[in-house]
Amino acid sequence: MATSDKKAIVVGAGLVGALLTILLARRGYQVEVFERRGDMRGVGFKGGRSINLAMSTRGWKAIDKAGIRKKIEANAIAMKGRMMHNLDGSLNFQPYGKTGQAIYSVSRGGLNLELIEIADTFDNVQLHFHQKCTQVALDEGELHFEDGKTGATNVHDAPLIFGADGAFSAIRSAMQRKSRFNYSQHYLDYGYKELTIPASANGGFQMEQHALHIWPRGKFMLIALPNPDGSFTCTLFLPYEGEDSFEHLHTDTEILAFFQKYFPDAIPMMPDLLEDFYQNPTASLVTIRCNPWQYQHRVLLLGDASHAIVPFYGQGMNSGFEDCTILDGLMEQHGADWPTIMDAFSESRPKDADAIADLALRNFVEMRDLVADPQFLLRKKIAAHLHQQHPDAFLPLYSMVTFSHIPYSQALAEGKAQDQLFEQILALENIETNWQHNPKLDSIFQHWLASKKQLATV
Amino acid sequence: MATSDKKAIVVGAGLVGALLTILLARRGYQVEVFERRGDMRGVGFKGGRSINLAMSTRGWKAIDKAGIRKKIEANAIAMKGRMMHNLDGSLNFQPYGKTGQAIYSVSRGGLNLELIEIADTFDNVQLHFHQKCTQVALDEGELHFEDGKTGATNVHDAPLIFGADGAFSAIRSAMQRKSRFNYSQHYLDYGYKELTIPASANGGFQMEQHALHIWPRGKFMLIALPNPDGSFTCTLFLPYEGEDSFEHLHTDTEILAFFQKYFPDAIPMMPDLLEDFYQNPTASLVTIRCNPWQYQHRVLLLGDASHAIVPFYGQGMNSGFEDCTILDGLMEQHGADWPTIMDAFSESRPKDADAIADLALRNFVEMRDLVADPQFLLRKKIAAHLHQQHPDAFLPLYSMVTFSHIPYSQALAEGKAQDQLFEQILALENIETNWQHNPKLDSIFQHWLASKKQLATV
Repeated sequence: MATSDKKAIVVGAGLVGALLTILLARRGYQVEVFERRGDMRGVGFKGGRSINLAMSTRGWKAIDKAGIRKKIEANAIAMKGRMMHNLDGSLNFQPYGKTGQAIYSVSRGGLNLELIEIADTFDNVQLHFHQKCTQVALDEGELHFEDGKTGATNVHDAPLIFGADGAFSAIRSAMQRKSRFNYSQHYLDYGYKELTIPASANGGFQMEQHALHIWPRGKFMLIALPNPDGSFTCTLFLPYEGEDSFEHLHTDTEILAFFQKYFPDAIPMMPDLLEDFYQNPTASLVTIRCNPWQYQHRVLLLGDASHAIVPFYGQGMNSGFEDCTILDGLMEQHGADWPTIMDAFSESRPKDADAIADLALRNFVEMRDLVADPQFLLRKKIAAHLHQQHPDAFLPLYSMVTFSHIPYSQALAEGKAQDQLFEQILALENIETNWQHNPKLDSIFQHWLASKKQLATV
Repeated sequence: MATSDKKAIVVGAGLVGALLTILLARRGYQVEVFERRGDMRGVGFKGGRSINLAMSTRGWKAIDKAGIRKKIEANAIAMKGRMMHNLDGSLNFQPYGKTGQAIYSVSRGGLNLELIEIADTFDNVQLHFHQKCTQVALDEGELHFEDGKTGATNVHDAPLIFGADGAFSAIRSAMQRKSRFNYSQHYLDYGYKELTIPASANGGFQMEQHALHIWPRGKFMLIALPNPDGSFTCTLFLPYEGEDSFEHLHTDTEILAFFQKYFPDAIPMMPDLLEDFYQNPTASLVTIRCNPWQYQHRVLLLGDASHAIVPFYGQGMNSGFEDCTILDGLMEQHGADWPTIMDAFSESRPKDADAIADLALRNFVEMRDLVADPQFLLRKKIAAHLHQQHPDAFLPLYSMVTFSHIPYSQALAEGKAQDQLFEQILALENIETNWQHNPKLDSIFQHWLASKKQLATV
């Protein structure tokens, strides 16, 4: 590829699009970025109160690549574990990993703003806002955009096109019409609604700040993540229909009775509960999978555009950022040989996206239900114990996903193997009291380890 | 619904759209039908040589409703079983059901033509051809069509809209953009290509006419269905990539060597093999699933638009026709209460469509591979024997799907139960020789039956 051909279009200046733009710009590409929304720098966006994300190891790696760790860390709040709120108001804390390990509450808007600002410092980056992609000619590599302010239509083309345009991607929509493009969108029967716990009068946090708060109630749950201004962003995940569901929450009485019944300790902290509930939309939860992610070695999908997942493992942004890290590694390895890069990316990455999609769906059950289950808590304790005893041989599933760079598909497979291990361990007599010193447990573990090793060498 | 409101738009005048139009017209609806293609009556279509279909019990029921059994039967050829072509040229015949049972080779074009002609006899039916649906406003029930000949755009609306517009449905496409619409399209890694075995010089059949011919070759297969003119329409199902695949069949030498190796007995019967191979496209095989099938009690999907399946169970058209039969039954039951009709249809039917989609995928393995497997053939024989002995208690899966109106989902569940039964039976000593008189087999069968009955009463 001649230097003059090193041109790329990135559709979408969200988290993944903006980060990708920086990485492409660093490698000398002329990048034109088209974003449907307006420039968030222009609308006086302030970080801290918008939707928040849980940044973990995979996300930080990409943040390092972009060179903005310090800026992001300054406004990130470490969440060292889950704080469970029981019905009676009592609390239980479960650490996420070892001492020192945490996931970080980060403002989506703040992070996006930082990335756009850095992207804009490159001479070889052109940012275009209010540009809605209205037509995609995949074979010609030609895109039509409509200017949301003027209504004018612009046509652009490039030898490389990256669709980072989110779960409702226009680029993917065009690929879906091509033969042999596998695609699925699946919605949970749950919706979610954001609510707020504001800072206390003196500007402090009303609950422990270094935790992700969960009110697990079996079929549904409320969660809360801390913001730097002392507030918490809460999200209620609830079925659309059925006994306890959004369809029955339409009046002050219904909403207050529901919160009184299930989240009594949260009510005093939520002065704007009713207003929030009425004003904020009930949003849906979709899982999107597709394959292949590339078209004719010219068009590539990344992030939510190719793998939107439910938020319950906190890996949506992290997996999208990992896409960028992996793609950057392939550019490092293969230069501008895009057929090789796109094939490699599109062949290896979808199975990992599939795995984290599955894991995220599983984790919903864990968060809303199992975290209050004694058997589950016991398993967590024994897993932590095994990891401490055998740090190289045993890493709990949550840690593989959250605190490592192990491919998601490998983590999922290992997690299934661990399920088999714990089925045996939890069947041991009096295991709830004698797990710390138990020769039978040790023997089961050694057997399990040996059979795994044998499998690996076959 | 007032009589003046009994208006409906049907998008698509293919098999399902045309049949649905007849059923709606019979119940007094004013029906406007919009079809993307031209009027097949005008282009001098002659039945007999186009793509053929296997009509079975579910299809016939709908044909009866349309009142055209005699016309269709006149050009239908009974296929009483599978004729397997072995590599050495020897043949094996497996009957599909009991004596007298058969599936019927029918011309798709001929059938479609008949249905359109009948639809056009109704004063309350308006047929519009060359009308491509370009825009769908679901909430307004408003459709835009572009006339393929004049380029003119027409806008139509109706209180009822039926999307019978096939696997690439424009109506479904619009529904896909709505929240909580689950959708998947999945392609097999196989393509298919149509080929021909013409009639012999004297106008007769070159092979047994009352059979569906299969050349099962493990990973791929050739099949042939008889036409009334003495020819056979053949279809080669082959992987796109890999050792034996379309990617290696590009020259005369490659194609002939491939046929010589795998289908030597077919070559002498196919004088136009090379021409057919080059001229006919390699088409793909998609399974489409979605849910819900209705929108706002105003828009309903039927046939391939909501459930395109692979052709290996011969149930694509049959299941689409059964949609029409069921919908007609609901109209009989609920009059013009469309909210009730659409809810009932959309709640009960997708699970049956899902089941036949799964069964069709399973049957590909059976056709290309298992039909040449002695264990499989033995199972077929024992199944037929059990059915003969216990006609009310045991119906083989193939018969449930093909020769009954048992809901597909129930047939699939029953098929899985039968798998468990045969796992036990085929493990019996010397079963391959002593299955006809075997007390152990009888005892296993009685146990199986008893446990099923117990389950049913729980």
